[in-house]
Amino acid sequence: MSHRIFNFSAGPAMLPTEALEKSAAALLDYQGKGFGIAEVSHRGKEFDAVVDEAISRCKQLLGLGDAHDVLFLQGGATALFTLIPMNFLHTSADYLVGGEWSKKAVSFGKEIGKVNVVASTEVSNFNHSPPQNEWKLSSGADYFHVCTNETVHGHRLPTWPKHPNLVVDASSEFMSRPHPASECAMVYGGAQKNLGPSGVVLAIVRKDMYAKQKKVLSKLWSFKDQAENKSMINTPPTFGVYILLEIFRWLEAQGGLAAMEKRNATKAKLLYDAIDNSNGFYKGTVSVKEQRSHMNVTYTLPSEELTDEFVKTASKNGMYGLNGYRTVGGIRASIYNAMPVEGAQSLASFMKDFASRTS
Amino acid sequence: MSHRIFNFSAGPAMLPTEALEKSAAALLDYQGKGFGIAEVSHRGKEFDAVVDEAISRCKQLLGLGDAHDVLFLQGGATALFTLIPMNFLHTSADYLVGGEWSKKAVSFGKEIGKVNVVASTEVSNFNHSPPQNEWKLSSGADYFHVCTNETVHGHRLPTWPKHPNLVVDASSEFMSRPHPASECAMVYGGAQKNLGPSGVVLAIVRKDMYAKQKKVLSKLWSFKDQAENKSMINTPPTFGVYILLEIFRWLEAQGGLAAMEKRNATKAKLLYDAIDNSNGFYKGTVSVKEQRSHMNVTYTLPSEELTDEFVKTASKNGMYGLNGYRTVGGIRASIYNAMPVEGAQSLASFMKDFASRTS
Repeated sequence: MSHRIFNFSAGPAMLPTEALEKSAAALLDYQGKGFGIAEVSHRGKEFDAVVDEAISRCKQLLGLGDAHDVLFLQGGATALFTLIPMNFLHTSADYLVGGEWSKKAVSFGKEIGKVNVVASTEVSNFNHSPPQNEWKLSSGADYFHVCTNETVHGHRLPTWPKHPNLVVDASSEFMSRPHPASECAMVYGGAQKNLGPSGVVLAIVRKDMYAKQKKVLSKLWSFKDQAENKSMINTPPTFGVYILLEIFRWLEAQGGLAAMEKRNATKAKLLYDAIDNSNGFYKGTVSVKEQRSHMNVTYTLPSEELTDEFVKTASKNGMYGLNGYRTVGGIRASIYNAMPVEGAQSLASFMKDFASRTS
Repeated sequence: MSHRIFNFSAGPAMLPTEALEKSAAALLDYQGKGFGIAEVSHRGKEFDAVVDEAISRCKQLLGLGDAHDVLFLQGGATALFTLIPMNFLHTSADYLVGGEWSKKAVSFGKEIGKVNVVASTEVSNFNHSPPQNEWKLSSGADYFHVCTNETVHGHRLPTWPKHPNLVVDASSEFMSRPHPASECAMVYGGAQKNLGPSGVVLAIVRKDMYAKQKKVLSKLWSFKDQAENKSMINTPPTFGVYILLEIFRWLEAQGGLAAMEKRNATKAKLLYDAIDNSNGFYKGTVSVKEQRSHMNVTYTLPSEELTDEFVKTASKNGMYGLNGYRTVGGIRASIYNAMPVEGAQSLASFMKDFASRTS
């Protein structure tokens, strides 16, 4: 492997070098068999073993037992924004809106049925997530949907809420810390942040939810049918699932989700300290400090010119992908599991230098 | 690259070694940039260039101009079985049923609207495709759906039919020969036969069809919206699309689709000759010789025991994946674009030896 830069892209994002190397090798030749893992039937013994191990490792990492299924789906979290209400929205569902992604979930959900927004911080440009004492939860909602880390705005729910039928879009923080997934009705995420390449959705479904499923227009879109068929109603994205398996193995070798949480907190602290100790040169965009994301660190500089210069100079120094979200601007440093502590150190040190040179 | 066996899997299937090697290299490091192509934003300049080149090469290979769009979708052909009627079925649509896959297209289509089966060969276990003089086409059908190569049963339509709104599931023969795609309303296929890994659907849509689209429940499922967003309403399966690009480059280097047609005909003839010259030891399963597929060569042996022994012995001799479809049995040798002529020679020669040893 040649030199790897520090890639702060928000997703698709940096993946662990070791998992990439093993995946590239398996693409060319799987276990010395003379074919690659992307070149064989999803129903053959090789890929079947891949899926079994991926499900089992995923459950192990998340502390799940028999009450939940692990599904590998397609279409990104955006597809799930439709499929979840399509499967589970009978009367109405509660949605918390703290940013662009939960707002999108609502807008797709409304095409299917009645959505109740329990709270929104759109008036303050989503600079924080609505505090729990402002949530107006309905009684009898079919489920309660939250996005626990808002990638665009850089905040998270420090702890996941409790609800009998909690549905979590965990896309941009999935497996970055231990999750109470065993208490959730559903947890899902596009893989392209912490888990693998785009084109795979990891979904955890509590089995008792199947009894509440509505009839959907394609078996592909029924979580129950996907579970009964081990996500193989038709051909799944086999190579993508293989990369997830390599990443699950890597996560376990790192010490699991508790170890990742610690490492991610270290990286986040380096960057937030660089912001907070800059005498206002860098301004964090999140108004509630306890909600600052450990995955996406968002901040602004005094001007657009300085922001552009910051991004360009950082790139010349081996730090890539620091632009904020296309509709928001500023800086976003995404420090998913694969970003080493050295990457955050390097950026923090660059931030200090840049501020002292230009302010 | 270590030794590669001859992999006759029906899909996911053998891919060209050169395209795999380039893809594996790009997974680790893209053009020496210090990150892999699966690790960057789909909206960044690197991936944007990949999509642009993939669209342009695809159009070049298929001889398409401005009248058609090229889309990269998810969910396999099975997802399209639902999305096509969801977008285009207003009153009723005509479907030709020559095998398991076109039968599935009908069964998914019926969930959405009125489907008229113009002819079916199910009574003869799909051992051929219904001859054109038996098709009962409706006047005013919204479209006419055909599957031009039936992977399970090993037959194809020697030429694609003509129809003002022809919709073609070309999954298992896409880009294996020149296609009259420019005359079609839509051509689509799961990539995992000739085009790349599973998890990507290549779809060609004639732009005038958008005017006939119905409102669908998610923008992701609207061909028009996908086209307007260059297949990037949300994150596409970026690494899968990259592999398709490498395969488009490889196809062009091979001489394009006319050259592939010639090579595939050579491979098919080797195997069909081995069947026809075996004094009945091997029996081709397709009753109409002109319909014999150049992609999936299906035949039976005198007994199940011999079939098992054939598959096992072939595997020991470096020829893998020869089992027939799980619900059908017998032998299926899939000889997609990536299978070299030497693979077909090797199998033909093995067939001759095996027959003379055991009959």
